[in-house]
Amino acid sequence: MTETSEAPQPQAGLEPGAEAGRVLKVALLGGGTVGSQVARILLDDAEALAARAGARLELVGIAVRNVDAPRDVELPRGLYTTDAEGLVDSADLVIELMGGMEPARTHILAALRRGASVVTGNKALLAQDGATLFDEADANGAELNFEAAVAGAIPIIRPIRESLSGDRITRVLGIVNGTTNFILDAMDTTGAQFADVLAEAQRLGYAEADPTADVEGLDAAAKAAILASLAFHTRVSLDDVRCEGITKVSAADIAAAQDAGLTIKLLAIAELVPLEAAGGPGGDLDGAAAVPREGVSVRVHPTLLPRTHPLAAVRGAYNAVFIEAENAGSLMFYGAGAGGAPTASAIMGDVVTTARRLLAGSPGRTGTATRTLPLVGPEAVTTSYSIGLEVADQPGVLARVAAVFAEHGVSIETMRQRIDGAEPAVEGAGRPEGRRAELRFVTHRASEAALAATVADIKNLDVVESVTSVLRAEGV
Amino acid sequence: MTETSEAPQPQAGLEPGAEAGRVLKVALLGGGTVGSQVARILLDDAEALAARAGARLELVGIAVRNVDAPRDVELPRGLYTTDAEGLVDSADLVIELMGGMEPARTHILAALRRGASVVTGNKALLAQDGATLFDEADANGAELNFEAAVAGAIPIIRPIRESLSGDRITRVLGIVNGTTNFILDAMDTTGAQFADVLAEAQRLGYAEADPTADVEGLDAAAKAAILASLAFHTRVSLDDVRCEGITKVSAADIAAAQDAGLTIKLLAIAELVPLEAAGGPGGDLDGAAAVPREGVSVRVHPTLLPRTHPLAAVRGAYNAVFIEAENAGSLMFYGAGAGGAPTASAIMGDVVTTARRLLAGSPGRTGTATRTLPLVGPEAVTTSYSIGLEVADQPGVLARVAAVFAEHGVSIETMRQRIDGAEPAVEGAGRPEGRRAELRFVTHRASEAALAATVADIKNLDVVESVTSVLRAEGV
Repeated sequence: MTETSEAPQPQAGLEPGAEAGRVLKVALLGGGTVGSQVARILLDDAEALAARAGARLELVGIAVRNVDAPRDVELPRGLYTTDAEGLVDSADLVIELMGGMEPARTHILAALRRGASVVTGNKALLAQDGATLFDEADANGAELNFEAAVAGAIPIIRPIRESLSGDRITRVLGIVNGTTNFILDAMDTTGAQFADVLAEAQRLGYAEADPTADVEGLDAAAKAAILASLAFHTRVSLDDVRCEGITKVSAADIAAAQDAGLTIKLLAIAELVPLEAAGGPGGDLDGAAAVPREGVSVRVHPTLLPRTHPLAAVRGAYNAVFIEAENAGSLMFYGAGAGGAPTASAIMGDVVTTARRLLAGSPGRTGTATRTLPLVGPEAVTTSYSIGLEVADQPGVLARVAAVFAEHGVSIETMRQRIDGAEPAVEGAGRPEGRRAELRFVTHRASEAALAATVADIKNLDVVESVTSVLRAEGV
Repeated sequence: MTETSEAPQPQAGLEPGAEAGRVLKVALLGGGTVGSQVARILLDDAEALAARAGARLELVGIAVRNVDAPRDVELPRGLYTTDAEGLVDSADLVIELMGGMEPARTHILAALRRGASVVTGNKALLAQDGATLFDEADANGAELNFEAAVAGAIPIIRPIRESLSGDRITRVLGIVNGTTNFILDAMDTTGAQFADVLAEAQRLGYAEADPTADVEGLDAAAKAAILASLAFHTRVSLDDVRCEGITKVSAADIAAAQDAGLTIKLLAIAELVPLEAAGGPGGDLDGAAAVPREGVSVRVHPTLLPRTHPLAAVRGAYNAVFIEAENAGSLMFYGAGAGGAPTASAIMGDVVTTARRLLAGSPGRTGTATRTLPLVGPEAVTTSYSIGLEVADQPGVLARVAAVFAEHGVSIETMRQRIDGAEPAVEGAGRPEGRRAELRFVTHRASEAALAATVADIKNLDVVESVTSVLRAEGV
C-alpha cells in the first residue's frame, strides 16, 4: 500500500479524459469480499497496472452503506464514503460490486449516461435487465463490461464476445455454479444423499445458510441467460430460462449413473434449435432473411454426461464452460468460479482493458444483440432421458412399460433391472409376493412432450409403484 | 457466395476509414488451407459478420503465388492475384496467412507502416521477430492481432492480453502441439514405441512426412516464446527457449509413468522465477524498482504429470493451456489446436474485433512488453525428476546409487525396482549371474546442475549399466 502515497492526488474540476491519458479516476461501488480485493489490487499493484493500462488508475473512493463497518482487507479509511451518487459523478470508470437490482441499476445507468464506462459482476441485474443497460451504454458511447458475472475468474465473456465473434456458436454447456458442482461431486464420491452433503457443504462454507438460489438452479439460470445472449447475439432474460435444481437428485440416481459410465452435473444449456419452416404451408423461405429459421433454447437442469466428456472431469467447486462452434469445434474454459480474489481478477481484467480503450478515445461497441431470435420452449428441443421406475416384480411388467414408450414414439436405448439390490430372477420363476424391482431406461433423443406423455401413462400402469427419477442426458 | 454480388463495390480513391464505418477493405495474403477457410467465411457469412463488426468486411483479394493452382474451396477466380504488394496497399485490414519469414514480414511491416491493421497466425515470425512488428504497430497506431498463432481455435492470446491484464500470471503450462500429444497419447494407450506410433500418425495425417519441427519441440518452442512474452509483459524470442522433443521417450518410460499414476506430455513451460538478490552483497533492494527480482524461464520438454492434473485429460491431437495467476488461481483453456476451420475461427475473431476498433477510430495499444525481465537458464530453475537406471542385480547397488544422490543434495521422493519384469528377490538370496534390475527414482525439486552432476556420477558407478531415461515432472 506504499504506492498510494506516490499516486497523484485527485484534481477537482478536471473533466473525465482531460488528463490526456495519464490518470483515470476509478470509483468502486461496494466494499464486500470482491470489492475489498479489487481495492487491494488497485492500490498494491498500481505500478504494474499503470504500465499495462497506459494510465494510472486512481481509486477515488469506495461507496459503502456503513463507513465504519469492519472489513476483511485493511484499506485507508478516507477512501470510504456513503455518497455513491457523488462518487459516480466524479469517475471515468465505475466498478459496480453492490450486487442486486437497486441501487446498483440506478448508479450504473447514471454512470453510462455521463459517458463513463462501467465494469460490473452483477449477474442478477444483467440477466434481468441487461437490455436497458446495453442500450444506455450504446447511446452514450460508453463501455459496459462484465467478465466477473459468469464463472468468476474464467475468461468466458470476452472470448465469446470477441474471440468467437467470427464464428457461429451452436451450443454452450456450462458448469457455472460451484456450490451445486461441489455437492454433486461429493455425492458422486461418497454415495451420500443430497441433504447430508448439503449440510456438510454448509459446514465447510461451500453452501450458504439459505442455499435456495444455488440448489434450485436460479444462480445458474441468470448466468445461462447472459451466456445465451452473447453466444447467439440475441436478447435472453432470466424469465426465458427453464430451470430445475438438484434437490431431487438422489444417491440412487448417482449410483445408477455410475453403473452406466455417466456422471450427473447441473448444466446451464443454451443452444440453437432449428425451427419448423416459418413461412406457412408451402412457403418458400429462400431469401426470406427476416424469418428466423432457428430459435434459442436456454435451460438449467441436472444432466447425465458420459464420464469421458471434458465437463465430467470438473471436480469440487470448479466451474467450466464448454462451447461448440461451427468452425472452432469444441472448446472448454475451466477455472475457479467464485471467491474474492478470482472474481477480482476478472474485474481487474475488465478495468485495465476498458481503461486502454478510454485512453485510445473510443470505447466503442463490442457487439451484443444484433438480431432477435425466438426463444423456443421444450416442445422444440429433444434430448435423451434416463427414467427410473419402481415396479412390482412380476412377469410381463417390462413388456407393458416398453409398450407405453413405443406408443409415444420414444425409443429405448438401454434398460437395466435391479431386484431389491440383486440381479433379476429368471422370468417366470417363483417370486416372493410383493417384491419390487427397479427399472432404469435411457432413451434416444425425444421431445419433452413425448417424454412427459410417456411418463404420465407409465405412472397410470397398475404394476408401476412410482417413477423415481427423470433425468436429461447430453452426449450419451 | 450469393452475398458478394450484393456487396458495395470498392470505391477507389477513398482513404481507409473514410467510408464512415460502412465498408472495410480486407486483403488476404495466402490461399492455403486456412486462407481458403477464411475467405469462405468472409463470403458466406458476410451478413452476420457485418452485423457483428458494424461494417461490411469486403474481401478485396487473395494474394497467392499461382493464380491457377487447384484449391480446396471454390471461390471466385477474380479474387486471386499475385500482386501482394498492391493488395496490401489497398486494404484497411490485412490478414497474413503465408507463413514463414519472408515475404510475410515485409508485407506485414508495409501494412502497419500505412496504418492498416494486421491479423496473422504466423507463429514463426512472431517468435523470431515479434518485437519489430509490435514496434511498427505501436509507431503507427495500428493493431497487430495473432490469436491463431498459438493453440489454433482456442482463445488464449486475448484472454492473456486482456482478461488477465489485471492479474499477475506466474506460470503457463501448455500442450500446444497436436502431433506430439497425439503420439504420446497413442503410446500411453497402446504401449507401442515412439517410432511405430509416429509411422501410424504419419499414415493418418496427424504427422508430417518430415516431422522434425513437431517431434523435436520446435513448433512448441515458438508458441512458448509468444505465450511467455504476453504472460510476463516482456520480450522473449525463440532463441531464449530451451527445447527438447519427444523422440527419446520410450514405451518403458510411459509404462513406468503409468505405474506411478503419471502421464507424459510435451509441455511448453513459461514461469516466473525468483532471482537471487541482485543488489550486491548486503544491498538493500527496497525502492530499487529498476532491479528485477524475478526472471523468466521458458522451456519445452516431455514432462511427467499426475493423471489427476487437468492437462493429463487432454487426449489425441487436442491442445490446452493451463495458467496459474496470483488472483485467478488455476485456469485451463482447451480445444482444437490446428486444422483449417478451427484456425480460421481464431483469425475471424481477430478480424471482427479489429474491425470494431477500426470503426471506433482507435486501434490503440493492447499492452505487450511493459518491462524487461531477464531470461534465466536452467541453473535458476528447480523441478522434480524421474530417472531410470539399468543396474546389475546384486546386493548393495541401491545403497551406492542413493549415496550419489545424497552427495549432490538431490533428495529422493520415491524408488521402484523391477528385476527382469518380476518383483525383486529378497536381498541376499541367491541370484542368477548377470541378471539386471531396473531402478526408477523420482526426486524432490532439484536444480538441473545438481541433477546433471548426479547423473554423471551415477553413470560412472561400475554397477550401473546405463541411465535409461531422465524426465522432468510437474505437480507430482
